[in-house]
Amino acid sequence: MTPLLHDLRILELGHYVAAPFATRVLADLGADVIKIEPPGDGDPVRTWGARVDGNALWWSVHGRNKRSVTVNMRSIEGRALVLDLVRQCDAVVENYRVGQLEKWGLGPAALAAARPGIVLVRISGYGQTGPDANRAGFGVIGEAKGGLRHLCAYPPGESDLPPVRAGIAIGDSIAGFYGALGTLAAIHAQKRDGATDCRVIDVALGEAVLSLLEGCLPEYGLLGRVREPAGSRLKAAAPSNAYKSKDGAWVLIAGNSDPLFRTLAGLMDQPELASDPRFIDNQARCAHIDELDGIIARWVAVLDAEAVLALMDEGNIPASKIYTVADIAADPQYLAREMVREVDDPLLGRVLHPGVVPVVEGLDRTSQIRWAGPAVGQHNDEVLGGLLGLRPDRLAALKEEGVI
Amino acid sequence: MTPLLHDLRILELGHYVAAPFATRVLADLGADVIKIEPPGDGDPVRTWGARVDGNALWWSVHGRNKRSVTVNMRSIEGRALVLDLVRQCDAVVENYRVGQLEKWGLGPAALAAARPGIVLVRISGYGQTGPDANRAGFGVIGEAKGGLRHLCAYPPGESDLPPVRAGIAIGDSIAGFYGALGTLAAIHAQKRDGATDCRVIDVALGEAVLSLLEGCLPEYGLLGRVREPAGSRLKAAAPSNAYKSKDGAWVLIAGNSDPLFRTLAGLMDQPELASDPRFIDNQARCAHIDELDGIIARWVAVLDAEAVLALMDEGNIPASKIYTVADIAADPQYLAREMVREVDDPLLGRVLHPGVVPVVEGLDRTSQIRWAGPAVGQHNDEVLGGLLGLRPDRLAALKEEGVI
Repeated sequence: MTPLLHDLRILELGHYVAAPFATRVLADLGADVIKIEPPGDGDPVRTWGARVDGNALWWSVHGRNKRSVTVNMRSIEGRALVLDLVRQCDAVVENYRVGQLEKWGLGPAALAAARPGIVLVRISGYGQTGPDANRAGFGVIGEAKGGLRHLCAYPPGESDLPPVRAGIAIGDSIAGFYGALGTLAAIHAQKRDGATDCRVIDVALGEAVLSLLEGCLPEYGLLGRVREPAGSRLKAAAPSNAYKSKDGAWVLIAGNSDPLFRTLAGLMDQPELASDPRFIDNQARCAHIDELDGIIARWVAVLDAEAVLALMDEGNIPASKIYTVADIAADPQYLAREMVREVDDPLLGRVLHPGVVPVVEGLDRTSQIRWAGPAVGQHNDEVLGGLLGLRPDRLAALKEEGVI
Repeated sequence: MTPLLHDLRILELGHYVAAPFATRVLADLGADVIKIEPPGDGDPVRTWGARVDGNALWWSVHGRNKRSVTVNMRSIEGRALVLDLVRQCDAVVENYRVGQLEKWGLGPAALAAARPGIVLVRISGYGQTGPDANRAGFGVIGEAKGGLRHLCAYPPGESDLPPVRAGIAIGDSIAGFYGALGTLAAIHAQKRDGATDCRVIDVALGEAVLSLLEGCLPEYGLLGRVREPAGSRLKAAAPSNAYKSKDGAWVLIAGNSDPLFRTLAGLMDQPELASDPRFIDNQARCAHIDELDGIIARWVAVLDAEAVLALMDEGNIPASKIYTVADIAADPQYLAREMVREVDDPLLGRVLHPGVVPVVEGLDRTSQIRWAGPAVGQHNDEVLGGLLGLRPDRLAALKEEGVI
C-alpha cells in the first residue's frame, strides 16, 4: 500500500510555525513537500527552544519528511526558480505578511500562469482582507483574539494570575490544520472542475481559533452570556476535574454521566451519593459542583495515584494522571502503536519523535517517518538538479551568486 | 463558483464532539453530511451547555450544514438502512467504542461490500489497537495523556491550583481535524488507486494531541529534559506575556524579536533597554525574563489598555487585549470578514455563528452556512425518501416500528 498523498507535491513558502505545520501534516501523509528557505541560516524556527550544536530539537519533528531547498527570494533569479518549482506542484502554502508574494511577483495570477489550476493556501494573523489585514499577528495574538486565552484560566476571583498560554503553539497548529484541509479540499475541487485559475485559500489565526469556540457566540448573542473560564473543571458536565493524590500527582476523573457517577460513588464506598438529590443527575451535580468536587478531592487525597487509577479502571471510568513527556515516553499504549519512536537524525543522532497521525490501517508505520528535519538546503541538488534538470555547473554558479 | 466539497457525501455515525466536529468542518466546506441519530432525543450533545427550550445553543453551530436522519442502530432494519445510505457515500466517520460497528455488522468488510472503495474514519480515545484500545476515553483524558494539560499551568511552585483545562473541547477538535484530513486524504487515495476495499483511518485522541507537542519528545529523549509549564509566557522567545493595564485588562505584548524589542523599548521611553546587555538578544532576554517582564509590567500598570494598544499599533508590535466573546462579537475585523454572523435557526431564532474557516476566495461567504443545526430527524423524508427512494407508507411504517 502506498502513502495516501504520495502523488501530491506541495511547495512551502513558509517559516516559523503555522504554514510549516500544515505541510508537516501533509508530508506525514506522504506528500512530497518542498520547503524553500533562505540560504544560510534557513527558517528561524531552526533555532527555537532547546538546541544541540545550534540545532533546535523541535526542528527534527517540524521539518521531517520535507525536502529543504534554499532560494534567495530577494533575487530575480531566485523567484524564477520558485516559479519553475511551482510548475511541478499541486499547491503552494505560504505564511508571509499579506502582499509579500505579490511584491515578489508570485501572486495568484503569476502562479496560475506557471501552473494552471494551482492552489495557493495563505495563512496570516488576520486574513488577506479587512481593516487589520496588514497588521502583524503571531500565534499568541490569534489565541487571544480567538477567545481561547480568556478561557485558559481559573474562574473570576479565584486567582490573580494571568490566563495561561496553552503551553504549545496551539493557535498556529489550528491554523495549520485548516491550511492542510484547505489544500486537500481545493486540490480536489480544482481537479474536479478542470480549473485553470489559482484557487486561493485564506486562513487567519484568530478566525481558526474562533471556529472552535463551541456555543460561545450563540450564547452571547441570544442570552447575553459571556463565557468565563472554569479552571480545571468541565463546566457543562460533572464530575470531571483534576484531584490531587496522596503522592502529589494530579489525577483526572471523568465520571460525568449518570451511569459513570453511580459506578464512581460505589468505588468510593459512598454509594448513597448516587441517590443524593444534590447529585441525582447531571444538572443537579453541576449545580452542586463545589460540594461534589470537595467530596471526591477528599477521597483522592488519601490514596496514591496508582490506587485511584486502578479503581477507575475497574469501573471503566475515564481517568488519567496528567502526563508529562516522561509519562508519555513510557506509556505502553503509545509504544504499542509506535506513537513514540526513535528516528535517525543526521544532525542530532537517534531522537524520539511522535508517530504519524492518523494511523492508516495496512500502511507500514515505520516507513511514514521517511527522514527527520533536514539540514538547510540538503535537497538542493536532488530537487534543483533532479526535478528541474539544472546542471551541476549551473547549480554551482547559483550558489556562488547567493541565489541558492 | 461551487463549494469545494459539494460532490462528496459523508455518513456520520457519530455523537458528542470529535466525529461531529470532523464532519462539521467537511460540511462547512460544502460536503453533504448525513448524520445518523437515535430516534427521540438524538445526539446527547444537543443538551450540552446553555439551552433555550431544551435546545443547546452549541448545537446550532456543531450541527450546522448537516442533514439529520434518525435510525435505531439496535434494530436489524435500521442497520440495513444504514448500509443503503453507505452505498451513496464516499466516507463514513464514526466515534463509537472500539468494536461497536463490527457488533452491528457495519465493520470495514460490510461497508466495502455495500460501497467498494469506501473510507472509514474511526475516532476513539486510544485507537483501534493496543492494550488500551477498549478503554473509555474522553477529550479531557486525551488532553492529559497527550501532554497538553500538564503544560496549561504556571511554572512549578508558582501556584497550588491544578493545571487548567483549555476551556473548550480542544482534544476532540484536534482529533476531529485529523479525522477530516484523513477523510479527504483517503478519498483522494482510493480514487487514485481505483481501490475496492475499505480504507480505515484510525485517530486516537491522545495521539492527536501528542502530535502537537513541538520538541518535547526529542528534548526528553536526547537531553532528559521534561518540559514544564510556563504560565502566561512564551518560553523560547521574550518578551511575550500578558500584562495588566491600569483599567484591569490583560494585554498581550509580543515584542519577541530584536527589531520588535528595540521598537518596544523606544515606545516605553526606555530606549536604553535595547542595548542593555541583559536584553541585547533573545537568548539574553530569555535569561533575564523575570526582570524584563517586571519592567514591562510596571510600564503597562499605569496606562489604560487602549493607550498601550495604540502605542503597540504605532510600532507594529503584535499585541491584543485578551478577548472575551463580547470583544469578539464587536471586533471590526471579524465583522468585515463575516466571521461573526447572524444565522436563522428554526429552533432558536436569529443566532450568532462563527463564519466558515478557511475563506475560499471568490466563493460567496453567506451561502456557506446553509442552515443551523437541524432538529432530530429533520431530513428523514428528504434523505430516506428522496435519496433512498422509500415511499411515504414505508417511512410511516418504519417510524411506527421505532426504526427511524
